[in-house]
Amino acid sequence: MGTLSASIDSVRGFQVAGVHAGLKKEGALDFSLIVSEANCVAAGVFTRNKVKAAPVLLDQERLAENPKAIRAVATNTISANACTGALGLKNARATANLVADALSIVAEQVLVMSTGVIGTHLPMDKIARGVELAGTSLGSDWRAAAAGIMTTDTRPKLASITVDSESGSYTIAGIVKGAGMIAPNMATMLSVIVTDAALGLPEAQASLKTAAQQSYNRIVIDGDTSTNDTVLLLANGMSGVDVSSGDELEAFQSALNALARYLAQEVVRDGEGVTKFITLNIVNAESGEAAERIGQTIGASVLTKSAFYGSDANWGRIVAAAGRANTAFDPDSTSLRVTAGERSAGDAAGLEIFSAGMPTEYREEAAAAIMAEPSITFTLDCGIGNGEATIWTCDISHEYISINGDYRS
Amino acid sequence: MGTLSASIDSVRGFQVAGVHAGLKKEGALDFSLIVSEANCVAAGVFTRNKVKAAPVLLDQERLAENPKAIRAVATNTISANACTGALGLKNARATANLVADALSIVAEQVLVMSTGVIGTHLPMDKIARGVELAGTSLGSDWRAAAAGIMTTDTRPKLASITVDSESGSYTIAGIVKGAGMIAPNMATMLSVIVTDAALGLPEAQASLKTAAQQSYNRIVIDGDTSTNDTVLLLANGMSGVDVSSGDELEAFQSALNALARYLAQEVVRDGEGVTKFITLNIVNAESGEAAERIGQTIGASVLTKSAFYGSDANWGRIVAAAGRANTAFDPDSTSLRVTAGERSAGDAAGLEIFSAGMPTEYREEAAAAIMAEPSITFTLDCGIGNGEATIWTCDISHEYISINGDYRS
Repeated sequence: MGTLSASIDSVRGFQVAGVHAGLKKEGALDFSLIVSEANCVAAGVFTRNKVKAAPVLLDQERLAENPKAIRAVATNTISANACTGALGLKNARATANLVADALSIVAEQVLVMSTGVIGTHLPMDKIARGVELAGTSLGSDWRAAAAGIMTTDTRPKLASITVDSESGSYTIAGIVKGAGMIAPNMATMLSVIVTDAALGLPEAQASLKTAAQQSYNRIVIDGDTSTNDTVLLLANGMSGVDVSSGDELEAFQSALNALARYLAQEVVRDGEGVTKFITLNIVNAESGEAAERIGQTIGASVLTKSAFYGSDANWGRIVAAAGRANTAFDPDSTSLRVTAGERSAGDAAGLEIFSAGMPTEYREEAAAAIMAEPSITFTLDCGIGNGEATIWTCDISHEYISINGDYRS
Repeated sequence: MGTLSASIDSVRGFQVAGVHAGLKKEGALDFSLIVSEANCVAAGVFTRNKVKAAPVLLDQERLAENPKAIRAVATNTISANACTGALGLKNARATANLVADALSIVAEQVLVMSTGVIGTHLPMDKIARGVELAGTSLGSDWRAAAAGIMTTDTRPKLASITVDSESGSYTIAGIVKGAGMIAPNMATMLSVIVTDAALGLPEAQASLKTAAQQSYNRIVIDGDTSTNDTVLLLANGMSGVDVSSGDELEAFQSALNALARYLAQEVVRDGEGVTKFITLNIVNAESGEAAERIGQTIGASVLTKSAFYGSDANWGRIVAAAGRANTAFDPDSTSLRVTAGERSAGDAAGLEIFSAGMPTEYREEAAAAIMAEPSITFTLDCGIGNGEATIWTCDISHEYISINGDYRS
């Protein structure tokens, strides 16, 4: 596997642009376009919220009907185009039509994404301006493309990885936005991953699903699941390297997993008002699903997140959250360890603070020293099975409340 | 039905005390005792968290073995006596033993409750002092008894109701504490309700369950379910009025429901850092259970609660939260109305802001004026069935984060 880079040089056959369409104030980039010169095999994973934004509905339709000839992804900010009824769907289609016209392709080859306030209609004049500007400024400025999808994100988030295989080298690259509403099964999280490797459609779908399951679906910021969550994978094959089977597919999956995990973690690190990055390793739960549920319940607990913010080793809140995760749990067989930094489940370092239903004789100062770190790992051993999951989460701060108390103003 | 009063004069045969046992700083009341001179029929409802505090386990055992001769309830603050293993259970028993000795009754007649930090052992010397002080200062100061169970509550919460029946009059009175960790299926919420009416055991159990279901289980502060939640009902029969059947039982249930609802709402009003009281009427959901789930998901949404705090009519977050409640929901059949004050589901007043999948043409200033009120009602009409539920919740403020960021220090 190649080395992960927090930038994107270029991906064969892809051009991008991030422009100011007039949606945001003061010239900030607010509209983004990704274009492939060749048809892409494309796959998507979407929010499980029953309230699905218009762009989600449109993309699901496109990927069902035309998944092997996608050419472009257009993303607008400020309006989520969710809870907007028939007009919302019409505007999503109109956006795709504008892009198709600008690129001389057909509308069915265009996917769209939206992020911003729920329940406001797309300002189509500004969208048209964004399409026009982006269409005439396509190039390799992936940083601008990543900036053009940001909402309350504080920095563009992008990464790439180049894999050298026996058949040649190929690149996988991705951008992501997140910040708030990040929860189990995604969030107002938009991500596009592109590759110049060649992939069959079932392999594209399966590999994206696998990667998303252990990355985007394993992060929790506030427990809210958005109406707009979308992760897209586009493969245009222009490297000439086919990764659809065998070792090549395995290597591709590994690289895709690493890229997706990095991007997902970046969403947590840049979450609204986040001051601490928390890794939750849940081990020896009844099942993998049980482990994931326990981790996500802890990650979504506002009480626990408040304690993280206060650098308080209030492990009781972690154990209590595990106990209400609607899955098998027995405090008497449980132990909890805390360690500074991001650690894997197998890493035995750190301080055991809870064991067999009771606190250990740990020194509060030792726990406080770990809790003062910006990155902290908790490993919760449930002692009742073999299920494992790792969840990445964060604290909740005054800043989060401020951001979300007047997001619309 | 009699009139609900926010105070308690006296309940025949019950004496109480709230004392300073040295658990809290600076002389604050921190230990509470409720004693009946006659044996009580007693019932309890408890946390559904898999992690149950020692006092919960002990009370469940007592109510299974000796539910018709309970004489006392002792409550300590500062330590929740949860996640404390075998020593925790031993200390809970020891507390009951101390109370039994002081009152010359047997330990099996004593229930105990604890609230405070999880994972700290009861300081038994201070508990002993609390029992001694309380045992010698029994009287009718219910306000002190209610103060003696407070944690981050800002005020004692108590109420009573006197019912005149054909067989005579009787009183139902209750105290409650809450503040944080208040969630579906209770919270670090402790409540004791006593009555001098006579009740059979099955009726005591059933009426408490019914009352709790539409009161304590319908409030959401932060979505965290505590290890210690307990609501107890003690009936000593000393009024001579038997309410075990017929119209008398119906009247008792009505009065108990009203008292429980008032006490539960008081918990929300006095929640940690609360600035707004929110009533969520969910109507025409697929079922009553679906309505309750939708209301509780909205009530626990941090994003939604942040918007309440910011007086932002961000209805999109409410609809999005409903969409992720894991139950049938269709935005296209849904409408949402917002009204100032606490309103019932049938009250047609207010501003419709969302209808048939789209925002209405409401004026933002009109919505903002309602959102500026300290008490606000949202009525969400799901348009797909007959299920109804009302949930009481609140906003989340900077103050909540401050309180919970350093609760232990």
